[in-house]
Amino acid sequence: MQRRDFIKQAGGASLALGASTVGITAAQAKPVYNWKMVTAWPKNFPGLGTGANRLAELIGELSGGRIQVKVYGAGELVPAFEVFDAVAQGTAEIGHSTAYYWKGKSETAQFFTTVPFGMTAQERNGWLYHGGGLELWTELYDQFGLVPAPGGNGGVQMGGWFNKEIKSIKDLTGLKMRMPGLGGEILKRAGGTPVNLPGGELFTALQSGTIDATEWIGSYNDLAFGLYKAAKYYYYPGFHEPSGTLEVIINKAVFKTLPADLQAIVLNACKVLNQDLLAEYTARNPIALRTLIDKHGVALRAYPDDVLVKLHRLAEEVVSELGEKDAFSRKVYTSYREFLRQAKEWTNISELAYLRARNLPTT
Amino acid sequence: MQRRDFIKQAGGASLALGASTVGITAAQAKPVYNWKMVTAWPKNFPGLGTGANRLAELIGELSGGRIQVKVYGAGELVPAFEVFDAVAQGTAEIGHSTAYYWKGKSETAQFFTTVPFGMTAQERNGWLYHGGGLELWTELYDQFGLVPAPGGNGGVQMGGWFNKEIKSIKDLTGLKMRMPGLGGEILKRAGGTPVNLPGGELFTALQSGTIDATEWIGSYNDLAFGLYKAAKYYYYPGFHEPSGTLEVIINKAVFKTLPADLQAIVLNACKVLNQDLLAEYTARNPIALRTLIDKHGVALRAYPDDVLVKLHRLAEEVVSELGEKDAFSRKVYTSYREFLRQAKEWTNISELAYLRARNLPTT
Repeated sequence: MQRRDFIKQAGGASLALGASTVGITAAQAKPVYNWKMVTAWPKNFPGLGTGANRLAELIGELSGGRIQVKVYGAGELVPAFEVFDAVAQGTAEIGHSTAYYWKGKSETAQFFTTVPFGMTAQERNGWLYHGGGLELWTELYDQFGLVPAPGGNGGVQMGGWFNKEIKSIKDLTGLKMRMPGLGGEILKRAGGTPVNLPGGELFTALQSGTIDATEWIGSYNDLAFGLYKAAKYYYYPGFHEPSGTLEVIINKAVFKTLPADLQAIVLNACKVLNQDLLAEYTARNPIALRTLIDKHGVALRAYPDDVLVKLHRLAEEVVSELGEKDAFSRKVYTSYREFLRQAKEWTNISELAYLRARNLPTT
Repeated sequence: MQRRDFIKQAGGASLALGASTVGITAAQAKPVYNWKMVTAWPKNFPGLGTGANRLAELIGELSGGRIQVKVYGAGELVPAFEVFDAVAQGTAEIGHSTAYYWKGKSETAQFFTTVPFGMTAQERNGWLYHGGGLELWTELYDQFGLVPAPGGNGGVQMGGWFNKEIKSIKDLTGLKMRMPGLGGEILKRAGGTPVNLPGGELFTALQSGTIDATEWIGSYNDLAFGLYKAAKYYYYPGFHEPSGTLEVIINKAVFKTLPADLQAIVLNACKVLNQDLLAEYTARNPIALRTLIDKHGVALRAYPDDVLVKLHRLAEEVVSELGEKDAFSRKVYTSYREFLRQAKEWTNISELAYLRARNLPTT
């Protein structure tokens, strides 16, 4: 907001009072907005669902009750994979989901959730907020009548749940695995069969043998779905999703009806959620990991280096092909790739060099 | 805020309208608050100072002009190291600084900026927002009449600027170096002489030989102060500050006079700033690093492993001694240490394992 508008909004009374510490704004009747929020997650699901609830509460709190948001879990108002359409069409004013679910609308959207062997959460936030990423995302969603905002991140994900060990890339051959987005395409090129299912269907699909393996998010969420009951081996790191940005989408026509302060409140509440979920995952994942190992006997395994290298080569193919799909895709890919190229050097001498140093034995 | 208050605040009119999408709140005259923000940074300094400016604008924007904040650089209203007292005494309503500057008030405060060989930015946010850290910080500052909030983070810092190479821990003997907080105490035990100076005085002190070496933040900020003109060797990683949390402090008596929505606006604007600065540093540090190396011929060096191990041992001494100072210090240390113990295992299989995997050569 410009200073001029800012002063205008503050009202004449405060200006008249000049340097005094407390003035009075012009009394104005203000409309109350009742919004529906549709989500791609089970209602109240730890992190994803409770985060959506917190976003709704926060918008209410910051707006002094001028926007009231009612949250719907997946399937309550619309199914998980119809969140995008529901908000675009105005069935709901706002939604919480993630962009790679909408690759049927735009393949380029996948860049805005995650890129295999791409950016970490910290790097993604750098790109989105200070590297032009969010502007590109906004440009993409504008054609659908939606305003996007980053709305959470789980950090580096886990690699997934398997009922056999992955000792070579050949162990992925014929594997039917839930893996959305670009990760799924990599799995396909490695000889597997990617499947996309909403989170709420994973456990049943895995237990019934409809799928052989699945990834979901990290220990906190994987424990909540009880995936350890249906698979024994738990692999890391999540090469396919080295941080997944959740999204908040807002119906653009509705958004434009809001006064400037409420527009700012909605978009900044999303920023708060984006940070808050990463903090929550960072606090809860370690505890859940210990529970999975100590209480449920899960076998933690690292992907072998040669498997990671082969998957990385496939990722480079898949991502560069997507980045050459059309002019807009090229624009996003160029921005993403260039940011990551620069960020990697810094990350290597900061986060990576530090974490390595912290692990050097002192005794 | 509880749902009951939330509905109360929304006003009777909207309730009367029931399920309609737009209601009208009760028209109310609202006071305008004019606040002064004092900061420990030069006015408009990249990241720190511009971040303070953005916080002020954001509070204005979210409140629809009901809080107007005027920002003062270090020395404009009070010197950098008097920010705490100025806000505690009500000379200013709000301040932007960092907690380890106030170890003269409380040594325990240092935990809330950074701990050598401690948490990364992501881990710190986990501890502060979802691990009880901010509650402890609030408890500590309450006795001074201040409300604290995390207000930015630069990520893993650089190790510092030197005019000689650091090949063994003996190279620190007799070294007069600017290093605040616990890092300074470690330097002292390694035989050096720690000095604390506000950022604005670093370049002159280094160039004039008042100090032999200095650390500041990271490439983005180090470039802005021109430190490369006064020292040749640029070391990593910043073992002494593996993420430094900036703080916003608010005069508690003033804060309590705000209505609930404005209290929420101020605290959530701080959350936005906390994330936004980390994103800005993550975007700008890599570019500044390249400028320092390519344009200014800076010699980038890694601390040798045996130096890091020795410094880590000293850090363990220093931090555990601080953690045994008194009952409150013990409480903070126990919370911090326990969170970090759990977080490390997770960080090792997520961030660290992933960053290592990303670096495996694919050709």
